[in-house]
Amino acid sequence: MKQLSIIGVGLIGGSFAKDFRELFPKASIVGLDKNESHLTEALSLGVIDKAGDMKDLSDSDLVFVAIPVDATLSLISEILDMAGEHTVVVDAGSTKASLCEAVAKHDKRRHYLAAHPIAGTEFSGPSAAIAGLFKGKTQIICEVEQTAFQLQEKALNVFNAMGMRIRYMNAKAHDKHIAYVSHLSHISSFMLGKTVMDKEKNERDIFDMAGSGFESTVRLAKSSPAMWAPIFKDNKEAVLESLNEYIYNLNAFKTLMEQDDFSGVFEEMQQTNRIKEILNGIPHNNK
Amino acid sequence: MKQLSIIGVGLIGGSFAKDFRELFPKASIVGLDKNESHLTEALSLGVIDKAGDMKDLSDSDLVFVAIPVDATLSLISEILDMAGEHTVVVDAGSTKASLCEAVAKHDKRRHYLAAHPIAGTEFSGPSAAIAGLFKGKTQIICEVEQTAFQLQEKALNVFNAMGMRIRYMNAKAHDKHIAYVSHLSHISSFMLGKTVMDKEKNERDIFDMAGSGFESTVRLAKSSPAMWAPIFKDNKEAVLESLNEYIYNLNAFKTLMEQDDFSGVFEEMQQTNRIKEILNGIPHNNK
Repeated sequence: MKQLSIIGVGLIGGSFAKDFRELFPKASIVGLDKNESHLTEALSLGVIDKAGDMKDLSDSDLVFVAIPVDATLSLISEILDMAGEHTVVVDAGSTKASLCEAVAKHDKRRHYLAAHPIAGTEFSGPSAAIAGLFKGKTQIICEVEQTAFQLQEKALNVFNAMGMRIRYMNAKAHDKHIAYVSHLSHISSFMLGKTVMDKEKNERDIFDMAGSGFESTVRLAKSSPAMWAPIFKDNKEAVLESLNEYIYNLNAFKTLMEQDDFSGVFEEMQQTNRIKEILNGIPHNNK
Repeated sequence: MKQLSIIGVGLIGGSFAKDFRELFPKASIVGLDKNESHLTEALSLGVIDKAGDMKDLSDSDLVFVAIPVDATLSLISEILDMAGEHTVVVDAGSTKASLCEAVAKHDKRRHYLAAHPIAGTEFSGPSAAIAGLFKGKTQIICEVEQTAFQLQEKALNVFNAMGMRIRYMNAKAHDKHIAYVSHLSHISSFMLGKTVMDKEKNERDIFDMAGSGFESTVRLAKSSPAMWAPIFKDNKEAVLESLNEYIYNLNAFKTLMEQDDFSGVFEEMQQTNRIKEILNGIPHNNK
């Protein structure tokens, strides 16, 4: 591995660069970002070796695209156009179907690997990048058979060396399920934060009453809107379906309370307590 | 301090006992619990020195009541009846108004101090007890002026020595605000867990796709229904108000998405991002 290009030197791109440098200390890491101050910051933090441009992509072994999903959709053709003979282009977006569709007929489709590392924090920008972010985390890969063998292998070697658990999925199934286990949590958290802030806007010291439970539940409301609005747009149908079911369940819980059916309320919670066993299976987070 | 009685030797009662022992190593700690196996466990863990009964309360300097709020409501009169001349009875329940009302005309009202330590984890039982749980946490005290001076002082000295930040509030205001900053988070989390489990019940390996964001948002869905159903019942009106506003906000978000107004979606999230500053003020959790 001689060269890595990172498009988008934020939390995900920067963390990938840090692990890559650890694995390939002699390789050069080129950063591309439309945000000049992110490039300057990534350079001064030593996350990248130089600020580059699209011409650098053809000499890269791996191009890692970690920008909002709408930006990836607009740029992916142009990025693939620049891929050299040995370049594999990997993205890290939270939706996969529209992107796979967008590249389906591209001449260099076999240079692209659709990926979604289930890793991150609620922070963003180059200074949020963390070494080891991907260790023990799930890397979902879609339509792997559309990627050239040698390029699959090249990317997988890197992911494995970073300690990721590889899972293969159909792109549409990925988008449908990720709406439930990730996208919905973000809406639930943002709207919880909004509800409480609206109510307490004149009584800031009320937050003295908030404990770690509240903090945990609204943590995702710190997430970047620039990243999340495009995800909700791109995965609109599946997200709306999950949101409808969530609202339905909240209304049902409300009705139980209104009818003073607190044994029903107890029952609902007890059923959901089974989430304990499920959560025990989730790779440990970085916090 | 010669003797502490703990009614309910679970997470909160047990943690209080652990800190108390550190502060007053020579004092005796008596445990009362209707769950015999919890008493046996608390004894074998050394959390309490002996299993006692109501007769032990009159010799106690402090009686700490940490059982579900409905059980406290049923027992509080009887507990106060047993209070000795120097006994202060403190409860740790998540609702305060109905309890303050229940004891308002009790002969020994001045032996009672209404408290709500904002501390806990999603676990329960004596084995979940943690030394230092209360350090740096907020202790809300209601109607302090109804408690005898010397007994206020006795309890406050203990809370201060445990490192708690004391805040005084009106009981009704406590219940109204705590619905937003604590009770609502639990419903949001339980129903999110339910929505995802219902959807994915036949595809357990989908949870391989879940990351730390999902884990954080549904953490409270591990909480004890035996503790939470009575809280929702006791604080029904305020909880329903907060739940209505939450559902209203979720529906508004859904409408923005349905109308393809993704700049509106962006705007909603950006407004809520201010939660960052607010959360920075929350005492650090124990996790």
